[in-house]
Amino acid sequence: MVPHLTTALTGPMLELERHVVEAQGDIEHWLRRQWLAHPAPFYSSVDLRNAGFKLAPVDTNLFPGGFNNLNPDFLPLAVQAAQVAVEKMCADARRFLIIPENHTRNLYYLQNVASLADIIGKTGLSVRIGSLIPNLTEPLTLNLPDGRQLLLEPVRREGNRLMLGTRNSFDPCSILLNNDLSAGAPAILQGLDPTQTMLPPLHAGWATRSKDKHFSAYDEVARAFAGLIGIDPWTINPYHALCGEVDFQARLGEECLADHVAAMLAKIRVKYAEYGITRAPFVIVKADAGTYGMGIMSVKSPDDVRDLNRKQRNKMAVVKEGLSVTQVLVQEGVPTYENLNEAVAEPVVYMIDHFVIGGFYRVHTSRGDDENLNAPGMHFVPLAFDQSGSFCDCGDRPDAPVNRFYTYGVLARLAALAASIELEKTAPGLPHPVTAGAT
Amino acid sequence: MVPHLTTALTGPMLELERHVVEAQGDIEHWLRRQWLAHPAPFYSSVDLRNAGFKLAPVDTNLFPGGFNNLNPDFLPLAVQAAQVAVEKMCADARRFLIIPENHTRNLYYLQNVASLADIIGKTGLSVRIGSLIPNLTEPLTLNLPDGRQLLLEPVRREGNRLMLGTRNSFDPCSILLNNDLSAGAPAILQGLDPTQTMLPPLHAGWATRSKDKHFSAYDEVARAFAGLIGIDPWTINPYHALCGEVDFQARLGEECLADHVAAMLAKIRVKYAEYGITRAPFVIVKADAGTYGMGIMSVKSPDDVRDLNRKQRNKMAVVKEGLSVTQVLVQEGVPTYENLNEAVAEPVVYMIDHFVIGGFYRVHTSRGDDENLNAPGMHFVPLAFDQSGSFCDCGDRPDAPVNRFYTYGVLARLAALAASIELEKTAPGLPHPVTAGAT
Repeated sequence: MVPHLTTALTGPMLELERHVVEAQGDIEHWLRRQWLAHPAPFYSSVDLRNAGFKLAPVDTNLFPGGFNNLNPDFLPLAVQAAQVAVEKMCADARRFLIIPENHTRNLYYLQNVASLADIIGKTGLSVRIGSLIPNLTEPLTLNLPDGRQLLLEPVRREGNRLMLGTRNSFDPCSILLNNDLSAGAPAILQGLDPTQTMLPPLHAGWATRSKDKHFSAYDEVARAFAGLIGIDPWTINPYHALCGEVDFQARLGEECLADHVAAMLAKIRVKYAEYGITRAPFVIVKADAGTYGMGIMSVKSPDDVRDLNRKQRNKMAVVKEGLSVTQVLVQEGVPTYENLNEAVAEPVVYMIDHFVIGGFYRVHTSRGDDENLNAPGMHFVPLAFDQSGSFCDCGDRPDAPVNRFYTYGVLARLAALAASIELEKTAPGLPHPVTAGAT
Repeated sequence: MVPHLTTALTGPMLELERHVVEAQGDIEHWLRRQWLAHPAPFYSSVDLRNAGFKLAPVDTNLFPGGFNNLNPDFLPLAVQAAQVAVEKMCADARRFLIIPENHTRNLYYLQNVASLADIIGKTGLSVRIGSLIPNLTEPLTLNLPDGRQLLLEPVRREGNRLMLGTRNSFDPCSILLNNDLSAGAPAILQGLDPTQTMLPPLHAGWATRSKDKHFSAYDEVARAFAGLIGIDPWTINPYHALCGEVDFQARLGEECLADHVAAMLAKIRVKYAEYGITRAPFVIVKADAGTYGMGIMSVKSPDDVRDLNRKQRNKMAVVKEGLSVTQVLVQEGVPTYENLNEAVAEPVVYMIDHFVIGGFYRVHTSRGDDENLNAPGMHFVPLAFDQSGSFCDCGDRPDAPVNRFYTYGVLARLAALAASIELEKTAPGLPHPVTAGAT
């Protein structure tokens, strides 16, 4: 049983949260129109940082793991949101294929896949799990710690359709990727019949996706949203910059990185002075493509990226699937103000289509408030939200937990909107960049 | 706090429920296509009777009261469903008007209005309550037992638009009727600008609506659904017949009624024999138009409608708002098999758009299992479902409560689908009857 948690942050409502709750009508109206112009991804999760003076998305995951960490009380909400997504996709849909990561030992991850399959199966679709594991020739049954079983079946190609099974063939009408394709989209997934909808599209994979492009799309969204509710966009948007040619092993590009770090620290100091914030700024240096919290550093001075020892360089040089890092994102660090029994906590909000369906806190006892909480080997404790975050109670006292979670849900939806715009702009085969802005 | 209730019926899964749960994939696929052809009403509630051998909707309410009786845990589900309904209606919507019944003393009813306003307000719409109370010239604040307040404002007409307020005019883009218009649609609601969407349409009011037409539409739906999952349609559909010209006061039409009762009892006996059911059949005689459980009798013999005393005749002659009864529906009685601590229980399922959002049991200690539980003066105890009823757990044991509530949710959605077809067929100004069937 997942423990219920009111909120990690029990202090009074912050100024920004108050603004968001008060503008609920305008925000929901604006978002309804945005989703018409930029349909939301099938699903997403967003890591948020609440610094008190600033609340911002720091990572937007288009292949969310962790569905097993959500509060089971909100399962009906997830199923209903999936129903809406399925109706949009194809009202005639019957068969749905999920393609997970190739892990067979990460049982927490596999429980996520089972939870996701359960949500979609409850909409009435027939759901099966197709694996890309090389040399998998027979269906593989895995036993999960929670007593469930997961059946992984090898995918096969029949013409331009992806199928499962040999005798009782399973021909899915939609394929949901829960695999971030860090190593690139394999040939078996390319050039599929367009009636087999790929969710999200292949170019959302980390082999092609760029955090910088995501946060550039988020710049637009944050600017428009800040204008709507009359706030400084900086309070919801961390600075970011890209270093194009970095080779940590060969020590190339260190100066570019150091220069960006120095420039960004200076910009943050100006903002901190404006808002009377006395703490020292920091920036996060991370691979522009990649996930799982690999290849991430928290730095407080340009020297921090100049004097990397061999171990640090090795750590930064490679992300998942051995993908080497060449593009590096420098992102303003947002300290987390939230903690639970002295442990640092970071909210992660989950969405299906444009609906917030809950979330959880990543809680870590041995990390500082300026460190990344999603790092390899980090054992975080997931604490499910006890509120869905899908609405506010504007008539209630502004610091009610329901309103804090609502604010988190709004920020997460802004990030999902940015992801939608990002995917439009990066879609292959477009003659010109899409100019769809969040206006 | 509403007590949570697993299910009133703790016995093993019935044959019919097993069929429904096993066919979940086909059912959801079929329903997805039905909703495209026949959009669901904005909201509805359905009274069900579970006889063990038969499970059927017995009343479909297009102006549901009782939102205050739903399990508060499912509020996010209701809000999300309302979000979808609002998006369909008009993505640009900002202002929403609810028109309730003219009650000012029925505090339970008024709590329902407050709960409904809360659900819709949580989607980000600005919601106000416009009253049709004659001579209401000033806003009226009512204090509710749960500590909330409800502000009723007089509606006024400005050209062909319905408005509230004089100085800060409130011009709604949608008008939600929670008033069943038993006395007919007042002039102020007629001929409105079509950009002020009326939900449901005026002809859904009881001055024009006919239970017989609803159950005729349900006949089609039940037949198609029964064919889909391979069951006898009778197991989900009560017989019904209409007596056109009845005047209880003048004792006209009694023979028509007695003949229908006799014929229907004979038909039920045939079915009971086929299924080995040994109990005595009964039929329900009720006004073809009307609500609030007024004008309803449970009869076991044609003589029961011949020998009415003055009091019984008075009771049957008039329904709400003094509307006199001329058309009478004769409906097969479905006994309720469900009880809670010896008290008879009847499930009521709530929907917003085509989404099941929960429900409650009407529990009554002093009524028999063949009597109507929604009668005037009847004080029922509402017991909220502890499951949303929006999905099944088909991999789980078939008699899990989640599966029983799912079956209730499916039957309720069939009734909502019948209501949609009924409203299409009865829409005024159509040159020919709509032939849209549930195929």
